[in-house]
Amino acid sequence: MSKNENALSIYALGGLNEVGKNMYAIECNNEILVIDCGNKFPDESLLGIDLIIPDMTYLEDNREKVKGLLVTHGHEDHIGGIPYFLKKINVPVYGTRFTLGLIELKLGEHKLSRETELKEINSETNLSFGKINVSFFKVNHSIPDCLGIVFDTPEGVIVHSGDFKFDLTPVNNQYSDIHKMAEIGKKGVLLLLSESTNAERSGSTPSEKNVGAHIEEAFVKATRKVLLSTFASNINRVQQVVDACIKTNRKLALLGRSMVNVVDVAMERGYLDVPEGMLIDQNEINELPPEKVAILCTGSQGEPMAALARLSTGNFRGVEVLPEDTVILAAGPIPGNEKNVSQVIDNLYTLRANVIYGSGKGMHVSGHGYQEDLKLMLTLIQPKYFIPIHGEYRMLYHHRLLAESVGVEQENTFVMGNGDVVDINDGIARQTREIHAGNTYVDGIGVGDVGEVVLRDRKQLAEDGMLVIILTMSKRNGKLISNPDTITRGFVYARDSEELLRDVNKLITKTVNELEHERKRQWGDIKHQLKKTVGQYLFQHTKRKPMILPIIIEV
Amino acid sequence: MSKNENALSIYALGGLNEVGKNMYAIECNNEILVIDCGNKFPDESLLGIDLIIPDMTYLEDNREKVKGLLVTHGHEDHIGGIPYFLKKINVPVYGTRFTLGLIELKLGEHKLSRETELKEINSETNLSFGKINVSFFKVNHSIPDCLGIVFDTPEGVIVHSGDFKFDLTPVNNQYSDIHKMAEIGKKGVLLLLSESTNAERSGSTPSEKNVGAHIEEAFVKATRKVLLSTFASNINRVQQVVDACIKTNRKLALLGRSMVNVVDVAMERGYLDVPEGMLIDQNEINELPPEKVAILCTGSQGEPMAALARLSTGNFRGVEVLPEDTVILAAGPIPGNEKNVSQVIDNLYTLRANVIYGSGKGMHVSGHGYQEDLKLMLTLIQPKYFIPIHGEYRMLYHHRLLAESVGVEQENTFVMGNGDVVDINDGIARQTREIHAGNTYVDGIGVGDVGEVVLRDRKQLAEDGMLVIILTMSKRNGKLISNPDTITRGFVYARDSEELLRDVNKLITKTVNELEHERKRQWGDIKHQLKKTVGQYLFQHTKRKPMILPIIIEV
Repeated sequence: MSKNENALSIYALGGLNEVGKNMYAIECNNEILVIDCGNKFPDESLLGIDLIIPDMTYLEDNREKVKGLLVTHGHEDHIGGIPYFLKKINVPVYGTRFTLGLIELKLGEHKLSRETELKEINSETNLSFGKINVSFFKVNHSIPDCLGIVFDTPEGVIVHSGDFKFDLTPVNNQYSDIHKMAEIGKKGVLLLLSESTNAERSGSTPSEKNVGAHIEEAFVKATRKVLLSTFASNINRVQQVVDACIKTNRKLALLGRSMVNVVDVAMERGYLDVPEGMLIDQNEINELPPEKVAILCTGSQGEPMAALARLSTGNFRGVEVLPEDTVILAAGPIPGNEKNVSQVIDNLYTLRANVIYGSGKGMHVSGHGYQEDLKLMLTLIQPKYFIPIHGEYRMLYHHRLLAESVGVEQENTFVMGNGDVVDINDGIARQTREIHAGNTYVDGIGVGDVGEVVLRDRKQLAEDGMLVIILTMSKRNGKLISNPDTITRGFVYARDSEELLRDVNKLITKTVNELEHERKRQWGDIKHQLKKTVGQYLFQHTKRKPMILPIIIEV
Repeated sequence: MSKNENALSIYALGGLNEVGKNMYAIECNNEILVIDCGNKFPDESLLGIDLIIPDMTYLEDNREKVKGLLVTHGHEDHIGGIPYFLKKINVPVYGTRFTLGLIELKLGEHKLSRETELKEINSETNLSFGKINVSFFKVNHSIPDCLGIVFDTPEGVIVHSGDFKFDLTPVNNQYSDIHKMAEIGKKGVLLLLSESTNAERSGSTPSEKNVGAHIEEAFVKATRKVLLSTFASNINRVQQVVDACIKTNRKLALLGRSMVNVVDVAMERGYLDVPEGMLIDQNEINELPPEKVAILCTGSQGEPMAALARLSTGNFRGVEVLPEDTVILAAGPIPGNEKNVSQVIDNLYTLRANVIYGSGKGMHVSGHGYQEDLKLMLTLIQPKYFIPIHGEYRMLYHHRLLAESVGVEQENTFVMGNGDVVDINDGIARQTREIHAGNTYVDGIGVGDVGEVVLRDRKQLAEDGMLVIILTMSKRNGKLISNPDTITRGFVYARDSEELLRDVNKLITKTVNELEHERKRQWGDIKHQLKKTVGQYLFQHTKRKPMILPIIIEV
């Protein structure tokens, strides 16, 4: 295959076979445009890891080609990795007014505000990078000011959907621009990348307006104060809470750092309309009659340190949940958070609050398109080639079936993984090669990445604890000077297991003496043999495999 | 309050404010009857714990009063703690024929078969313990041969519902005996204890027969082999799989230890009707045409070591999932298992199997009664007093509302926790006191229980790893003989952090020398000061708090 100078390559560094850490790229004629740079939150098996971002080695190795980062919207799984990206590759960041507001908060935390070039765009902006012209279209999602992206390349038009649903009765005029998409599709699209989060769910995503109606009803019914928890970034829902406050003549307090910050950004930049004097400080809550107060707070995922969890256990200074208060969880639990959320609900009931939660109550709708929404996008854009993105394997798989059902040829859909590359040459797309992709673990601040070795160690320590063996040996003849010492942590409670540890000590002495007898005096040999012998003994007697850490002191 | 000699006490040692480890007791005139003894499985925050059982200290302290253990049915959350109970308190165990079959498997594993007295009962059995007469009634649940229990005491009749739903089209004639319950209710019941698992769900629980229809449909449609995974103990569902095999002329193989064991017990004891010659060995699977084979396997919760997970990754010796095979997950994920289940589904799709899963597919119904079922039980039994059992707080809370809605006086319902006691004296119930209750952690075999200290250590090790500091000091003058050594595990990868560790070493030397200067030579002082100084330093530079373990060697 001879490669023409206009050849295009498309790949993901994150977002395929996972929900989270979205990062896609388009490469043409020595120019790379990056789309989004998100993080994802680790599950419990990644012990003590704070977050996961895409491994960006490939981009670092091609740093001079990278021309810019285009951001579709301001959710963490699309912007959470940006500070780490910019520390390595400092290029301009393009986003809408609201998206940039959220990115600025992040840059401030990482002290990157000064050296970063932020460029504001909107759905009418046209950009040009070498041979690629870039334009945009509005999409509706659970955060304001979202975009899909159109790349006009010498090979043809590539469309990236962003995260979207079609909400025909949107809040705050945040609509998906069906007319513009129809026009783009009519001109001919070579390739569509479209998000797959809800590809398993049949029907159409319900409108955000439905949630507003349920919120209003609950506010009207409530005889005392109302607390509502939702994602801070869902400003359209926040607007509906504000509207319910107007309707029921309540003042509104905001609790939780991210709620305060994001609402601030939204008000400042004109995405949220709050009447003068409605917002009150948290210390004013107790000064008003309870039926005149509403509270909007973080913690809808049951996060133990967030406002709602602290309120539910009476640990939020100055604010209390009292009997007959109404508490609304206006968010579904993200898979993995169910237990934390249940715990918070239990605690709220113990406080005798009236708790409104669960899927039947209409207090939450998804921001991601269901099957009918996804089919509508495919129908409007009518691409020749299709790459389902943003989803676990079964979601990508179902999205492929949807594409087939609306006329995309089966062999023209690429269900692929992070690092897989689709090359387009003379109008023909092929998936044959891959680039390096993977996870980078971020752990604390300042130490850098955590490797697999450290994670494996933590896992073993977590499951079975450890046993430290201390041998004091003579420099002169390599013999044990005193009885070995052993220390356990997280393994057995030493006081309960004196006998076991006594036997282990005897076994250690015996093992070391045998080695000495065989003239094996290399520390490596001794440590290896101790790990093996003691490990086997402990597993036999306790069914546990603690980490064994022999330490040799020579005196 | 003068206590008459017939006074009754009722309490739970497990099962309240949790789903799992059910254990209830009725005490009258120095006799204690125990109902069920279950376990529960730990969540990820309890690192390396195998299972949790009720703390039975109270029963041990009153061992001579305990007259027997009555078991309502054979699920793990009702029988999983029995071996641990019997090791401490050896009393007869009463259960139906199928329930005893499952208990026997468990006793075999713990080598307790010989010394345990198992007494078979059925719904017509009458037992007598001192002043208490005990009888039973059939209930329908997701395992065969379940009972509710009636305690006829001098104070009045106490009813325990067992786990139940009302399935009016039951499989294998496993019905809930509405007529008998009506009779019991008509005679007058003082107190009902009823299970609350689905108290949040409106409507009636669908019938198990519905699942059978969907299974049959999938079997008929399948063009190659069918794999179905469900809970091994759901023998009624297994019967429907057998029926689908008859219908589609397939042989059936069983994979997974518990599936083989439980089906064995069910066939031996007459709870499962399998035609002669239908069951095949797993090594016969590949000898038959694929459309003539079905496989029933464990692992519906995505457990990484169970059959389905191993099949999904191609790690089950001798059996493969091939393209176009049909795989049915006939079980909903228990909260906390969602991620593991999703992983298995993703892997099965990668093998290009046709996977049937999710709530819309009709392949699973709950065994626990929804709100209408719970109200029917309350209506049939029409108790004066009510204790909702078997559920987290919000479930117990909703069950109380249901009781109110069918006429139980609000103040006559006791929503309580493990260890809370309801005393009944001259027909009046009061909840004023508590006995000791709690969790006992079981970890491996042979070491006994794991304490809070060990768990806390594991937690810290898991999150942030550890740093071992080795100081070699002179016996003569208490001074450092050489530079301190440090070893990290699970904290930072030593090669990446040489500088940090070098600075820590300097800090250690400085700290020890300062203490020496102040003549503080007590090892306790040195260790305490090192933990503090080094801990602060590391947190400042890494935002991590590894366990710090100073070891002093005197030479």
